[in-house]
Amino acid sequence: MAGTAEIFKAQGQSCNAKGIAAAIAALTAAFGNRVVISLAVREQHGNTLTWVPNQPPDAVVYPQNTGDVQTIVRICADNRVPVIPFGVGTSLEGHINAPLGGVSIDFRDMNKVLAVHAEDLDCVVEPGITRKALNEHLRDQGLFFPIDPGADASLGGMAATRCSGTNAVRYGTMKDNVLALKVVMADGELMTTSRRAKKSSAGYDLTRLMVGSEGTLGVITELTLKLSGIPEAIASGVCPFPSVDAACKATILTIQSGIPVARIELLDALQIRAVNAYSKLSLPEVPTLFVEFHGSDAGVAEQSQRFGEIVADLGGGPFDWATKPEDRSRLWQARHDGYWAARHLRPGAQAFATDVCVPISRLAECVTASQRAAAELHLIAPILGHVGDGNFHLSLLVDMADAGEVERAGILMERVVELALSMDGTCTGEHGVGQGKMKYLKAEHGAPALAAMAAIKRALDPQNIMNPGKIVALN
Amino acid sequence: MAGTAEIFKAQGQSCNAKGIAAAIAALTAAFGNRVVISLAVREQHGNTLTWVPNQPPDAVVYPQNTGDVQTIVRICADNRVPVIPFGVGTSLEGHINAPLGGVSIDFRDMNKVLAVHAEDLDCVVEPGITRKALNEHLRDQGLFFPIDPGADASLGGMAATRCSGTNAVRYGTMKDNVLALKVVMADGELMTTSRRAKKSSAGYDLTRLMVGSEGTLGVITELTLKLSGIPEAIASGVCPFPSVDAACKATILTIQSGIPVARIELLDALQIRAVNAYSKLSLPEVPTLFVEFHGSDAGVAEQSQRFGEIVADLGGGPFDWATKPEDRSRLWQARHDGYWAARHLRPGAQAFATDVCVPISRLAECVTASQRAAAELHLIAPILGHVGDGNFHLSLLVDMADAGEVERAGILMERVVELALSMDGTCTGEHGVGQGKMKYLKAEHGAPALAAMAAIKRALDPQNIMNPGKIVALN
Repeated sequence: MAGTAEIFKAQGQSCNAKGIAAAIAALTAAFGNRVVISLAVREQHGNTLTWVPNQPPDAVVYPQNTGDVQTIVRICADNRVPVIPFGVGTSLEGHINAPLGGVSIDFRDMNKVLAVHAEDLDCVVEPGITRKALNEHLRDQGLFFPIDPGADASLGGMAATRCSGTNAVRYGTMKDNVLALKVVMADGELMTTSRRAKKSSAGYDLTRLMVGSEGTLGVITELTLKLSGIPEAIASGVCPFPSVDAACKATILTIQSGIPVARIELLDALQIRAVNAYSKLSLPEVPTLFVEFHGSDAGVAEQSQRFGEIVADLGGGPFDWATKPEDRSRLWQARHDGYWAARHLRPGAQAFATDVCVPISRLAECVTASQRAAAELHLIAPILGHVGDGNFHLSLLVDMADAGEVERAGILMERVVELALSMDGTCTGEHGVGQGKMKYLKAEHGAPALAAMAAIKRALDPQNIMNPGKIVALN
Repeated sequence: MAGTAEIFKAQGQSCNAKGIAAAIAALTAAFGNRVVISLAVREQHGNTLTWVPNQPPDAVVYPQNTGDVQTIVRICADNRVPVIPFGVGTSLEGHINAPLGGVSIDFRDMNKVLAVHAEDLDCVVEPGITRKALNEHLRDQGLFFPIDPGADASLGGMAATRCSGTNAVRYGTMKDNVLALKVVMADGELMTTSRRAKKSSAGYDLTRLMVGSEGTLGVITELTLKLSGIPEAIASGVCPFPSVDAACKATILTIQSGIPVARIELLDALQIRAVNAYSKLSLPEVPTLFVEFHGSDAGVAEQSQRFGEIVADLGGGPFDWATKPEDRSRLWQARHDGYWAARHLRPGAQAFATDVCVPISRLAECVTASQRAAAELHLIAPILGHVGDGNFHLSLLVDMADAGEVERAGILMERVVELALSMDGTCTGEHGVGQGKMKYLKAEHGAPALAAMAAIKRALDPQNIMNPGKIVALN
């Protein structure tokens, strides 16, 4: 392990080389070849789809059950070694990196559905299952788990980052769809956060405290999730608008009118150009809303019609909607491929996705100011947004060989966050803090909130071994 | 203040008489006649609609703004004196009592709507405003705040107890409808938990940690709340069933079918008898569902029709529904008067409301077992339930002069909680813990969760001055 320790020292990071060696020896005694220390595997576990540099852990362990996770955490606690939970590695802000080294817990083998309670509309799963695998499992029972971040993320990771995505405007985020968690705490004890009852007032909301805590307070080993019935009918459509402002106004009026839209996604003109090229579509290259309605046959027809009326009043349209599954799938596949489409706008460039969220009344202003900032900085940055929630993403396409451009990309990311914060918004609507957004938390929340977060972190993880260096900086 | 100190000593409680005297002197210097120490006022602030005995605070203070609250908390912190937030005193589990004495902060004068953001469907309010006053304020804008616990509670108290009520099956609980809070912490610092963006992944969910913390982690001085549009159409109805089981099955099927029912309330046969007598109705004295549907004209008609079909399949009905406001109001007034109607079943008796919540698949079993337990113990205890959430209440009508009956009432309350816990339920769906339900938390959550709650309490309130003696017992 000396090699790794040297790398850390070269990066100016503290490293508990002795503790790490002892932990790996104890882990190997307990788990044999389910402990992996090859560089390739370690690097794969310290890599994210982001600008944060690769920081590999010292070892990767593959537990098979909650008891294994308790053993791993106890070994790490005894040796003051960091513990970093790993789902499938789709996080965007350096959540799974190991800036202080340590042990990555890979939930690859803990991916089972443990129970489905159809009458209660809930299920119990292990953290390694991905959302597509879960929905595959549920389909026969007419049920689905509605949170859809685009990527086929693991449910443990989705809970840990409080993720959301396209369906959140109707179905909420992970905070609204996790009923209870089992969490291995920093001392190896197993905590159950709640029961399976749909609501409770019995003490502090530990479920919501763990959702979004990014592994910094404990390791999730089991999730009880709320499910929804697969809607009887689904209608989808695409609608062009003369401006971002008109598209955002249509979104506001749709929600104010109580139309229970299931998805309402904004793609700016540049993103539409990318989607047309990548997905072989021929949409007009103007700001466009992709919408979807869920309900009864009569219900989705009524919703679609009322949406069409709002659109027409704002000079948008024509609004065409379809209920055929194949038409819908093609459309939403194109939307989900938005990130890859954006990358194809500029082959060879690196794509950095950033994410902010503002009150919806400020959304058009925030999007257009972000577009202006990108233009001023000579950057290519198509925009995609979950506009029903006031949430949008920029995909910055950067030539990494051009140092000036890399610097300007950093400036743009900061400027977009500053814009969002100036509008009573947040530096991240759904990607999470990781390492990437720690620097904005004080401006967003203020010193007392940050002090409360640090106090909670210290109280639950006194040795600072649970995914250290993420969310809260401890001194 | 010697009088109060003596009372506390007589009750075997510790009391910081010197600190209390010093705090009252400092508060009086700062707030003059907004500090009240008369016994009548103090007793009114140590009284709840429950069996927990009156435990008055040493003084009551009426702040006018957040700065006043910070001053009060700082004075109390300097003197290690408990701080107990007080809304309108409708809590049911001894939340506002002062078992260790201290200062009650009465939010009577902090009852303003500070802002309404109609486009964002949110508003900012002070904690003393009641839900009816808020909805009165919002009505002209076509908006409403959906959480309805029956009592005209204050919004601060509703957030502090994580309350819910009849509309929760569709609109969620307070945890789902609070966007952000301002909270005065134990050191007097003002914490803002979140921004006005509809969602965020920026760090620990301090909003949800504070919602349901019952004043034990801080004092809420401002709330940003999600609003809903007043539905275009509302349909209500009443439906008799041959059994509790059939009524619960109808509820399960309604929700599984995706009918977005806004309220679905079970009244057992005894509760219907009480309602008939109190509200001059002539409903058949059998288990009955009160339902309400929100939507467009066509939407509520479709929902009502589909509900009627489910009911008929289960041998229930006839299901009559009405959309006229006067008919609806009469019906729901009768439902809301359920508690008072229950009391009138046995004039002179004391009524104790208790509250549990179970997975909906176990609800019929839990309700009928509770009815059986009441009968075995020769107690009169009509049942009312927010059955869409698996939540129900017993109103125990007890002759306080009969010591044996009082004891049996205590046994019944424990037995109902045990039943709920044995079915993966919670000891309280919406009333909160207060003093009354502390003893059940370990059985419900287990030692690691209780240890986490205590660690958080100690981290954020090291002197244990924030509403001490509620939720978490510290040693």
